[in-house]
Amino acid sequence: MRKIAIDAMGGEKAPEAIVEAVLKAKAELKEDKFIFFGDESKLRQLLPEADEQIEIVPTTEVILDEDEPVKAMRTKKDSSMVVAANWVKEGKADALLSLGNTGALLTCGIFIIGRIKGVARPGLMPTMPVESSDDGFNIIDVGANASSKPEYLLQWAEMAAYYAEKVRGVAKPRVALLNNGAEYDKGDDLHKEVYQMLKESSLNFTGNIEGHELLQGKADVVVTDGFTGNAVLKSIEGTASVIIHMLKDGLMNNGVKAKLGALLAKDALKSVASRFDTAKYGGAVLLGLNSPVVKQHGRSDARAVYYAVKQIDKILAEDLVGTFKSEFAK
Amino acid sequence: MRKIAIDAMGGEKAPEAIVEAVLKAKAELKEDKFIFFGDESKLRQLLPEADEQIEIVPTTEVILDEDEPVKAMRTKKDSSMVVAANWVKEGKADALLSLGNTGALLTCGIFIIGRIKGVARPGLMPTMPVESSDDGFNIIDVGANASSKPEYLLQWAEMAAYYAEKVRGVAKPRVALLNNGAEYDKGDDLHKEVYQMLKESSLNFTGNIEGHELLQGKADVVVTDGFTGNAVLKSIEGTASVIIHMLKDGLMNNGVKAKLGALLAKDALKSVASRFDTAKYGGAVLLGLNSPVVKQHGRSDARAVYYAVKQIDKILAEDLVGTFKSEFAK
Repeated sequence: MRKIAIDAMGGEKAPEAIVEAVLKAKAELKEDKFIFFGDESKLRQLLPEADEQIEIVPTTEVILDEDEPVKAMRTKKDSSMVVAANWVKEGKADALLSLGNTGALLTCGIFIIGRIKGVARPGLMPTMPVESSDDGFNIIDVGANASSKPEYLLQWAEMAAYYAEKVRGVAKPRVALLNNGAEYDKGDDLHKEVYQMLKESSLNFTGNIEGHELLQGKADVVVTDGFTGNAVLKSIEGTASVIIHMLKDGLMNNGVKAKLGALLAKDALKSVASRFDTAKYGGAVLLGLNSPVVKQHGRSDARAVYYAVKQIDKILAEDLVGTFKSEFAK
Repeated sequence: MRKIAIDAMGGEKAPEAIVEAVLKAKAELKEDKFIFFGDESKLRQLLPEADEQIEIVPTTEVILDEDEPVKAMRTKKDSSMVVAANWVKEGKADALLSLGNTGALLTCGIFIIGRIKGVARPGLMPTMPVESSDDGFNIIDVGANASSKPEYLLQWAEMAAYYAEKVRGVAKPRVALLNNGAEYDKGDDLHKEVYQMLKESSLNFTGNIEGHELLQGKADVVVTDGFTGNAVLKSIEGTASVIIHMLKDGLMNNGVKAKLGALLAKDALKSVASRFDTAKYGGAVLLGLNSPVVKQHGRSDARAVYYAVKQIDKILAEDLVGTFKSEFAK
């Protein structure tokens, strides 16, 4: 049985939305066991009395979004996140899902669960939407590392391409390097060197990609240094959110005519919003650790958590970590 | 009289839209003279016979968007861009406006017009929109430099803050550093060091800003290394363009109901589009050169070029370059 550790206390809708999502996924995932870490009395109220697919591990502390990551890991030893990470480290669970403090989760992942031997640095990898299909693309690293070296990016590309193939079902994923121009000699020394490494690798490397092309579906995997990736991911999310917010505002506060128009165009507007709904892709995976760690947005609802649970099940079923371990140990 | 060199051959709508814009601006800018560089017969057809505010300098070549910048500057010696840059260098014109190849314009700016003594590197600075007002914000550098050093960023911040104050009329511009987190110790070594330099400077430094906050109007000037700035600018533009395109598509191709809805909501949709209309801010300025160089999007229409001409007039009227020269020579 695959055992998934669930940090039940992270995120805005914890633990209710998390429990709801796991209970829904559980019915489909008969080979999985879900271990909830969190407030015992709250969890007992939400969970069925007896269920062999479910276990509760009571914890008394919670890492908050405003907590400093390293300090939180060190001092909140009985937090849902830290205890869950320790269970994974000790082999009592096979993967970790959290909606909590991103920095703290990265810290727990790296220092408690640990890096795969041969992997220089783990990379954080979400799946993002593209304009013209529901396939999306993976981008790595979006902020696990403030400074990056060429060899990190090569390994991230390799792991992300494997993920795209095995978990998302993309045959021969097209791998591109985020750069400041199309030509091979673009970028700073780091990106020039990575370009050559990717070109000489066995990956299906398609060259450089620029910021404005990201959502156009030109690549299945985009590799970037963690600093740029972080800025780009947040810029895309921020831009989409500002435009959609302004649009809603404009339609709702411009009199009856605009409101009626919005009502008539509802389905069309919804279809745009659904293309940019990233919930269906699951959470961001911290690739390169001894066990899978998945981070979901703190504001995720039960539907998003449900997809993250299914994503983890798939990562475990395909034994991604086992493959990485044998691959990078060479 | 202020003399503005106009590369009349760059951009998708050259030279018609450029001439149209200058003729409109000319009526308001009686102290300016406009020197057009380009195809003589085309320009003669579009321009009035005798006008002391206008001069034509015939050139026979055009630098194309697909041309390699350094090679283009060296080989297309009679191109509108290169000849215009030489006029500025020789003091026969005071500023340069082009809608052509960005890389070539940067190259001509740096190698022909030259850096101000004491400025380590010029930075490219557009004005971007914000969600809640028409003020916008400046971001520097968006790609003139693939590699950046701390001292470059400090100088860019100083020049951009001065621009925001004098040209855009922002009192005590709030200067922020694009980084991967809010706290002072975030980022790689470069950004940590720049944080301290900005903190110790006389600028109104408000701390770090993250990608998702850029369009929220939290800063008047955002300083960033040229690699990240390039990726972020293109990501914002790409995301806005994809969403607006999908929206139009959704409204036009979802039957009569959606079309009618779009018609009714037209004004509301237009108000969103107008907030994201960056034409009113003019073009991107290459700050740190011996004379002002402004780059307009290649797809700009006459309206956008008109604003860029007014922007250059203001930069010259406020003698930005003169101030920078005396400031950085210290």
